[in-house]
Amino acid sequence: MTMRGAVLHGPRDVRFDERAAPTIVQPTDAVITLAATCICGSDLWPYRGISTFDAATPMGHEYCGVVEEVGRAVTSVKRGQFVIGSFFASDNTCPHCRAGYQTACQHREPVIGAQAPLLRVPLADGTLVATADVPAPDMIPSLLALSDVMGTGWFAAEAANVKPGATVAVVGDGAVGLLAALSAKQLGAGRIIVMSRHEPRQKLAREFGATDIVAERGGDAVARIKELTGGIGADAVLECVGTQEAMTQAIGCARPGGSIGYVGVPHGVTLDGQSLFFRHVRLHGGPAPVRGYLPKLIDLVFNGTINPGKVFDLTLPLAQVAEGYRAMDERRAIKTLLRP
Amino acid sequence: MTMRGAVLHGPRDVRFDERAAPTIVQPTDAVITLAATCICGSDLWPYRGISTFDAATPMGHEYCGVVEEVGRAVTSVKRGQFVIGSFFASDNTCPHCRAGYQTACQHREPVIGAQAPLLRVPLADGTLVATADVPAPDMIPSLLALSDVMGTGWFAAEAANVKPGATVAVVGDGAVGLLAALSAKQLGAGRIIVMSRHEPRQKLAREFGATDIVAERGGDAVARIKELTGGIGADAVLECVGTQEAMTQAIGCARPGGSIGYVGVPHGVTLDGQSLFFRHVRLHGGPAPVRGYLPKLIDLVFNGTINPGKVFDLTLPLAQVAEGYRAMDERRAIKTLLRP
Repeated sequence: MTMRGAVLHGPRDVRFDERAAPTIVQPTDAVITLAATCICGSDLWPYRGISTFDAATPMGHEYCGVVEEVGRAVTSVKRGQFVIGSFFASDNTCPHCRAGYQTACQHREPVIGAQAPLLRVPLADGTLVATADVPAPDMIPSLLALSDVMGTGWFAAEAANVKPGATVAVVGDGAVGLLAALSAKQLGAGRIIVMSRHEPRQKLAREFGATDIVAERGGDAVARIKELTGGIGADAVLECVGTQEAMTQAIGCARPGGSIGYVGVPHGVTLDGQSLFFRHVRLHGGPAPVRGYLPKLIDLVFNGTINPGKVFDLTLPLAQVAEGYRAMDERRAIKTLLRP
Repeated sequence: MTMRGAVLHGPRDVRFDERAAPTIVQPTDAVITLAATCICGSDLWPYRGISTFDAATPMGHEYCGVVEEVGRAVTSVKRGQFVIGSFFASDNTCPHCRAGYQTACQHREPVIGAQAPLLRVPLADGTLVATADVPAPDMIPSLLALSDVMGTGWFAAEAANVKPGATVAVVGDGAVGLLAALSAKQLGAGRIIVMSRHEPRQKLAREFGATDIVAERGGDAVARIKELTGGIGADAVLECVGTQEAMTQAIGCARPGGSIGYVGVPHGVTLDGQSLFFRHVRLHGGPAPVRGYLPKLIDLVFNGTINPGKVFDLTLPLAQVAEGYRAMDERRAIKTLLRP
């Protein structure tokens, strides 16, 4: 059987290609029918040719939908259930998973090819979380956001030790940065400063809980944060980009003893040990252990506390995936939702 | 008035030179008569010509002794009291001090020239802590250790989030590394693995609480730590050296989500953002905020709980300071105590 999904052929060359429909390969697999999928900021790294990739790479790692079929070893999810999972499959039982680092699972596998109608999810028991009820259609975007960007923003805030009353600075106004601001708000931050110079993103940031917007960049942004914090710096800085500029800016904004949670996949980022040392900052980040947050975040979506789906400001049929990439690449869209 | 103290003239050229005796310069200063002073591992960086220094630099930043004179603005210590202070003077009232980062004090000043009979300490009210009683002579080495190495080892353990029951690895078997092991023990670590291939240091490490010794280095050391921890890695790694090799080793030993407390001043250390990201480690370090620990650590010395002075395995008259440096440079001594 075949289906059509997004395949990256070269820089800025993503196509809606025919390819084999996924099937159960391992007894621990599930195959799901996607309710919706989307394009991630991290998909832009290979799209822009900044990170390398194999020829004809099926794209997409964000997903939610209905279980179509499970392997014979799968016990915790069954056909017909609505499920959400993380971009890394994990067994959720190994020591790293139990310590809360499911994205460092000893058996982790990337989930690949989610920009398609059907998706194979490895380690289904550990990876997928079923919702108690079938969600209403208007809840789908928010549930889809939990598959990566919402959990990644949440991890940025947790990795940066955001505590009630804290002063938080967010570097990056993409979907993750905006949802990091939302997460900081949920964790009780007293002040949330989002760095953005794009009016629609500033607006959404405020809606999510930002108390201040800083339009400056680089050294000017650092100076502005210092000014806003009485010369002290932020307690927590959430770095949601992954460039050297963003990381340098994040480190500069933190107070001594302050924390930087970094969740943008670093590209060409190097840190000088001595300058890090004399700044006294705390650094923690990595691929967000989204799986661990899913039960809590699903509750927050179902009870209406959070609505992370607002980051989707463009919805397209999956067949128009190429336009979805272009819109994000050119920053015309924050995040593109694709309807299979 | 003049006195004689240690002055560094060039690589491996430290002399017992005549220089001006310190006096009160600022009204917030104190001048103390040193009960003892010592040579720090970090003094070896300029001594070896690895870090630059001005010609004829007075050396030494570890000290305890009796207050000789105070400036007119000093209110919390007085002539005749026995005091200990940190290598950075701090006001202990600014926001960074109040947050526990006295070594990032907005008014911090280095304390310079402690390898001498007399020492000027700036910001005496914030910097110096007086003991309740005049200490017995045999307690002096342990109190002197609190001025830097003991507090630095303690910070390594705190920065690495050492918790009761934790598995801790220590990189570096110098005075700081050994006292980091002692600190981890005090903080309740369940297992303390010290990396050392020097028999006398291994012995002292065990005395301080090490449960395992790893003689391997580099990748072999990492493999050994993994083996000792069932393939998981250490919860906390205390990096007490400051070289690229030591930092790489420390990062390799930590479990995902594990913490690295680094207190060796980094020399030529660079960190690759992406590899740090995918390892999920937590990184925190810097010049240890020794001042904040002094009251607690003084109590632990006075009540006999800890005896950090054991790191001094060579005692010389101050006049023989050059031999003291040579012994440490050649690793014949762990740490040299100097009697003015």
